[in-house]
Amino acid sequence: MRNLLLTICYDGSGYHGWQIQQNAVSVQQVFQEALVRVLHEKPDIKGCSRTDSFVHAREYCVSLKTEHTIPCARLLGALNHFLPEDIAVLDCREVSPDFHARYSCIGKEYVYQIWNNPVRNPFLNHRALHYWYALDLDKLNKAAAHFLGAHDFSSFCTMDARERGNFVRTITKAECAREGDMVTFTVAADGFLYNMVRIMVGTLLRVAQGKLQPEDIPRIIEAKDRKAAGPTAPPCGLYLNHVYYEDVK
Amino acid sequence: MRNLLLTICYDGSGYHGWQIQQNAVSVQQVFQEALVRVLHEKPDIKGCSRTDSFVHAREYCVSLKTEHTIPCARLLGALNHFLPEDIAVLDCREVSPDFHARYSCIGKEYVYQIWNNPVRNPFLNHRALHYWYALDLDKLNKAAAHFLGAHDFSSFCTMDARERGNFVRTITKAECAREGDMVTFTVAADGFLYNMVRIMVGTLLRVAQGKLQPEDIPRIIEAKDRKAAGPTAPPCGLYLNHVYYEDVK
Repeated sequence: MRNLLLTICYDGSGYHGWQIQQNAVSVQQVFQEALVRVLHEKPDIKGCSRTDSFVHAREYCVSLKTEHTIPCARLLGALNHFLPEDIAVLDCREVSPDFHARYSCIGKEYVYQIWNNPVRNPFLNHRALHYWYALDLDKLNKAAAHFLGAHDFSSFCTMDARERGNFVRTITKAECAREGDMVTFTVAADGFLYNMVRIMVGTLLRVAQGKLQPEDIPRIIEAKDRKAAGPTAPPCGLYLNHVYYEDVK
Repeated sequence: MRNLLLTICYDGSGYHGWQIQQNAVSVQQVFQEALVRVLHEKPDIKGCSRTDSFVHAREYCVSLKTEHTIPCARLLGALNHFLPEDIAVLDCREVSPDFHARYSCIGKEYVYQIWNNPVRNPFLNHRALHYWYALDLDKLNKAAAHFLGAHDFSSFCTMDARERGNFVRTITKAECAREGDMVTFTVAADGFLYNMVRIMVGTLLRVAQGKLQPEDIPRIIEAKDRKAAGPTAPPCGLYLNHVYYEDVK
């Protein structure tokens, strides 16, 4: 049985996240339909993470097992032929039998895009949050730095049946940058809780508005209470940017 | 009577060009509907040029006359409120009574975007031409340089009832550049014929494929025959980038 790792990229604005669900089109469903057309079988595909509706991925990893002998390069080409224009397969390779896109993942990096200009950018519709008012990057970075390290991030998690057990995550990167009118927040960690990046961004925007100070972040983390943090920022600005595995890539 | 100049920006992928037509949604129609909601009158609006279906504009200029006393900044804000997300008003100012968005225009700059990678980019769907094979920028620039100056561009024009008279245009800029996998062709002129930039791009791609040489361009221009040039490149990669007026901006 071959074990394949595929790296895909997608514009999530037309999809209700990765995971297959009833009454809504998901990336997994569309990907699986393309796979069936190429392989004439329906392998069980493992995604590297759940992603919310309308969230994008510059890099999303999928593993699947198949007996099919199609060479990796041909599988990549054939899938790109059958997939719609808003999903692309970037890479396909054979990996060891015990590799699993989700369980082998040792970290992820997300980027959140904010178009920071009084006038919206028509080319960033569904691709970035539009934020009118001035953003003080120094202040945002002071706040973001408090996320670094290992913390219980219960305050930055939408609690639902799926979230159980350990809420400690280790943040290895948390920084804001500006390029012209585009402000980005980049955050890397060994793992993320449900809605974690979007709540971080909502909280940073509270800091930008002066309703919170950078020094409030440790207190918010300490509270372990969702109500202590800011609102959940909209999904359109969020991009899964990089998925980390040991050895493989 | 006030004469207003508005600069707008739009993602053209959902529109059949600027000009109002039957049975198809145009940018002019949607813009006019927003104007009516703000001004409660229907001024005659002049666009700086025709644009083809699905072509984009980073900068498109419109002039209109009105007796309405609304300040320019408020008109800008109100229009952006009523316009859909894929159209934005960037600037609004009062101009002299004889200004006309089309007849006062002394030049325009277009950019054509080509995503040059074997795998498509889902975020550039409807925003760039996807071109698989290697592009030799030196060769493309050698070809593009032959467009510079004043020439009869009949070979680079789709003839229809609208094209009459003088086919001479003066090109002041014609260059290709690469930034990562994105190749752009930028061209500025005192005016453009119907489909001119798209036929230039189609011809440059023939040069990239080795089916034409850079030195063939003068011969193609000389032929004054549409059949001598390459095909018309698709509209998705084309952006009206800048509109030139004397004094005003």
